[in-house]
Amino acid sequence: MSARAAVAAMTAYTLELREAEVKLNQNESPYDFPLKAEALASIASRSWNLYPDFESTTLRTALAKAYGFAPEEILVGNGSNELLSAAVGAFVGPGTPVVFPRPTFALYEKLVAIAGGLPVPIDLDPATGLLPLDGMLRALESLDGAVAIVCSPNNPTGGVLPDGGIETLLATGATVLFDRAYGDFAVNSFATEELPPLHDRLVTFSTFSKAWGLAALRVGWLASTASNCREIRKVKLPYSLNIVSETIAAMALENRGVLDQNVARTIAERERVLAFMRGIPAIAVYPTRANFIAFRTRATFEDFLARGVLIRKTTLEGCLRVSIGTREQNDRFLTALAVILSREDGEGSSALESLT
Amino acid sequence: MSARAAVAAMTAYTLELREAEVKLNQNESPYDFPLKAEALASIASRSWNLYPDFESTTLRTALAKAYGFAPEEILVGNGSNELLSAAVGAFVGPGTPVVFPRPTFALYEKLVAIAGGLPVPIDLDPATGLLPLDGMLRALESLDGAVAIVCSPNNPTGGVLPDGGIETLLATGATVLFDRAYGDFAVNSFATEELPPLHDRLVTFSTFSKAWGLAALRVGWLASTASNCREIRKVKLPYSLNIVSETIAAMALENRGVLDQNVARTIAERERVLAFMRGIPAIAVYPTRANFIAFRTRATFEDFLARGVLIRKTTLEGCLRVSIGTREQNDRFLTALAVILSREDGEGSSALESLT
Repeated sequence: MSARAAVAAMTAYTLELREAEVKLNQNESPYDFPLKAEALASIASRSWNLYPDFESTTLRTALAKAYGFAPEEILVGNGSNELLSAAVGAFVGPGTPVVFPRPTFALYEKLVAIAGGLPVPIDLDPATGLLPLDGMLRALESLDGAVAIVCSPNNPTGGVLPDGGIETLLATGATVLFDRAYGDFAVNSFATEELPPLHDRLVTFSTFSKAWGLAALRVGWLASTASNCREIRKVKLPYSLNIVSETIAAMALENRGVLDQNVARTIAERERVLAFMRGIPAIAVYPTRANFIAFRTRATFEDFLARGVLIRKTTLEGCLRVSIGTREQNDRFLTALAVILSREDGEGSSALESLT
Repeated sequence: MSARAAVAAMTAYTLELREAEVKLNQNESPYDFPLKAEALASIASRSWNLYPDFESTTLRTALAKAYGFAPEEILVGNGSNELLSAAVGAFVGPGTPVVFPRPTFALYEKLVAIAGGLPVPIDLDPATGLLPLDGMLRALESLDGAVAIVCSPNNPTGGVLPDGGIETLLATGATVLFDRAYGDFAVNSFATEELPPLHDRLVTFSTFSKAWGLAALRVGWLASTASNCREIRKVKLPYSLNIVSETIAAMALENRGVLDQNVARTIAERERVLAFMRGIPAIAVYPTRANFIAFRTRATFEDFLARGVLIRKTTLEGCLRVSIGTREQNDRFLTALAVILSREDGEGSSALESLT
């Protein structure tokens, strides 16, 4: 048999599958969960043969309490990917125009293609890497019944919407899907939350995979009005969150210090790495408030891999992305960068000197 | 905002959320996983902050070895629900006719509605509860480019396709999605597998939630040609299986005795419960080869709940479904049944006598 045309024309979501000593390619937290023993004891006492709670009440209630919502204003899922997929399924039908920046997280465009929506990518300025808010607004104003998808800080460039950006997008009348996967790294004070208030055309997606350091467990959540949650839940698969992931995510919320420490360490390292990279004239570094840095360079993905450092290609010409790891991992990356550049044209040698 | 029309018109997948002493409503295995300590030790040693393997290679390789496929002929996911959703997304587009029995697992029709396909339900004979193979064949022969979805043993009635049924469906030229969620309970010898051979228009779905007794962990898998797997994988979300569920499912496959014992105990109990129920003239019992029994009765869901036994309503008029539990749980159900019927019309009293 053959898949339907829209799917046959798609390419798969892919990842360069490589082994390397220093893994800085997936924007993961470098810090493992500190409460494993407690978490596993709690899981041992559960019945593995019984389905998870149909409504994931434990975790939804814990999130509601932590973020100031009602439980019916929250859905949880198998990573925010699943919830993005369900929301696109609920609001994007054949022909629905969907406006999003380009480049951004590749999954959005795939979900729009599967739903039969009309993708309206708005290129960001490759010189600045900032989110193309004005271009998105112009597109949305010319389109009826449009949906906007925006990730801020954006992946892979790290740029954020200006203050009030979400409100400006909502003012066009569009439905806005706001992915704040990296939002915890963008706050000025990492002790405060920056979730936008609920709006009947806004869905906000968050994840435990980045700042919480629980990527292995696949837990995401969304906040929206109870009415939107009811519609999205129709599209979402039942029982999508297993008991282990639900239990550990709820335990994490009780131990907010885990998040705060991860964020503080990552922001401190990001600023250190950025300062170093900005000192190298041969590369251009995008402004970032995420846990990764995108930069233009003549160095290649393979140059880094040959030195044991796995980073990520991007769809921006000549632009690579590196995640912020531990201090040791970051130093390995910076050393590789300096060595590669100094080998190529001598421009990295002074940088290398400052690092060692 | 409002959801698109196809979604607004849908009802949510629901479940009667009730607490009861005896839970026989979700076709779960009553036996918990016997190797928890070993499983949790293995999980403790993993990095929870890192994403799962992109290709779930460990589990796909273990399944390939256990069932005689190549790893590229297998996809794994967050319950077979996720894989059913991805397969419908890959093969069902706007207007694609999809033939399925009615009643059957409610998710199929929801997935078809989300994809914009044309649902073609074929009613089964409510007198026998058998799968309506002839009706499905007639419908498929009159439709171009159709997809068939069939669950055998069927949920909620327990009936199976006759030998060669899958091949007959394939002979119509249709694409066949075959859900063998309950297949392990249908084999004559529970030590042998009964997966149909690969075919380029066949996708076979299996789960760890029933006979393996791992419903809490949400793990499913599918087998098809490598080419079909590549297309379905485009629609499936990346990283959908967390490391805990993947690790435990792979460990289960290394301990095949867990499955064999669960199946043997459940089949023995099913036959015992069936024999008892067939002795009660006031009810009609559908033939079943699954881990549940559907029966027609004047007794209601609420009658059982009032006696601490949670079973399930079905969409067949006057028909309830009970899962096979432990001997003790089943006796609680049978006692409740006998008491309810004896209270109503005296017909259960002799049955009650034979039980006690």
